Amino acid sequence: MKKYAIIVAGGKGLRFGANLPKQFLLLKGLPIIMHSINRFKSFDKSIEIILVLPNEHMSYWKEICDEYDFKTSHSIAQGGETRFHSVKNGLSLVTENSLVAIHDGVRPLVSIDTIKNAFEMADKEGAAIPVVELVDSIREMKGTESKPLLRENYRLVQTPQVFKSDILAEAYKQPYNTEFTDDASVVERAGYKVRLVKGNIENIKITNQIDLQVAEGLI
Amino acid sequence: MKKYAIIVAGGKGLRFGANLPKQFLLLKGLPIIMHSINRFKSFDKSIEIILVLPNEHMSYWKEICDEYDFKTSHSIAQGGETRFHSVKNGLSLVTENSLVAIHDGVRPLVSIDTIKNAFEMADKEGAAIPVVELVDSIREMKGTESKPLLRENYRLVQTPQVFKSDILAEAYKQPYNTEFTDDASVVERAGYKVRLVKGNIENIKITNQIDLQVAEGLI
Repeated sequence: MKKYAIIVAGGKGLRFGANLPKQFLLLKGLPIIMHSINRFKSFDKSIEIILVLPNEHMSYWKEICDEYDFKTSHSIAQGGETRFHSVKNGLSLVTENSLVAIHDGVRPLVSIDTIKNAFEMADKEGAAIPVVELVDSIREMKGTESKPLLRENYRLVQTPQVFKSDILAEAYKQPYNTEFTDDASVVERAGYKVRLVKGNIENIKITNQIDLQVAEGLI
Repeated sequence: MKKYAIIVAGGKGLRFGANLPKQFLLLKGLPIIMHSINRFKSFDKSIEIILVLPNEHMSYWKEICDEYDFKTSHSIAQGGETRFHSVKNGLSLVTENSLVAIHDGVRPLVSIDTIKNAFEMADKEGAAIPVVELVDSIREMKGTESKPLLRENYRLVQTPQVFKSDILAEAYKQPYNTEFTDDASVVERAGYKVRLVKGNIENIKITNQIDLQVAEGLI
């Protein structure tokens, strides 16, 4: 089945360290988001890339594509008000019955195995997301109180989250809801089951300078 | 008030990468556990260190103390069957009314601020643990099913967990329970409240080769 990867690089307000949104910061000399795109192309060179960018970053993106001689073919969709709206805009460019991965632009260390696991499971079952176990203990907050939980019962969720395109199209017709924490939760709300596959622990989300240092150490 | 730090280096079975339990692996040329001890001494040079080691590692520990010229004064307690039993053995060496930190030996990147936050809060309130927010989405497992949760309602728990010695002594009189996921849960089970303080995101638990690479990048 045809494959797409929607790479979401919505972050605009947040600027950390340098004067650049995190998805454009350099990791081993290349903007983070280009690493993320390259991972999907390494997995399958025929995959169609849809990059979702805030309007105000479009021209900067073109500049750095020239600067870094980044020639990987991709379409561009416009970022929306929330991640939900950004993904929905990206989805409008999915024109064929296909498997669609949705990936955080700031997760450049996703492994080929993680991508493969998610696509294979989604092909069989319709919807798949990569998860990893917790290393730290975990607590639930209840107002000013908190209580310990058993960490074996919880998983941390990564991306890419992969779905059959028809499921995704239907799920994203729902009105936006603040309980949509990720794409899986949108699809589940529409009544579909989501399967879990093994993620890779290096697949961190780069949200600050420390994460960037970590990623430099791992890449 | 007098201060103690019980550094728990119980891991014996697990051997990853090299043929050494993880607490002895080198981080920037120094065994991880020595970094952990040094952090507490940097916080307060008068703090008493109690290192909990499995019996079979005692002689190796002495060897590497010589090899790395590690002269920081410390007592040694014998590791037990579980972490609960190890901490209990460490506690038996706490002889004064004091504040007692319990710290994972494999968390060498704890910041001085994290240690300070936990000690100050424990001094005021009796019991304090460092926590950080989640970056990834989180799901709860129910058998083969799982459901999304709101990550704002959860915190990941780090160490040092710091307590007044009398609270800890009383809490550790309880019989062992598999729901004791960390020291805070033991103390809460005994009826005490535990306060949360701000941890530091670099304060990772080194449990595999990837964590070690991450730590190398961060130190």
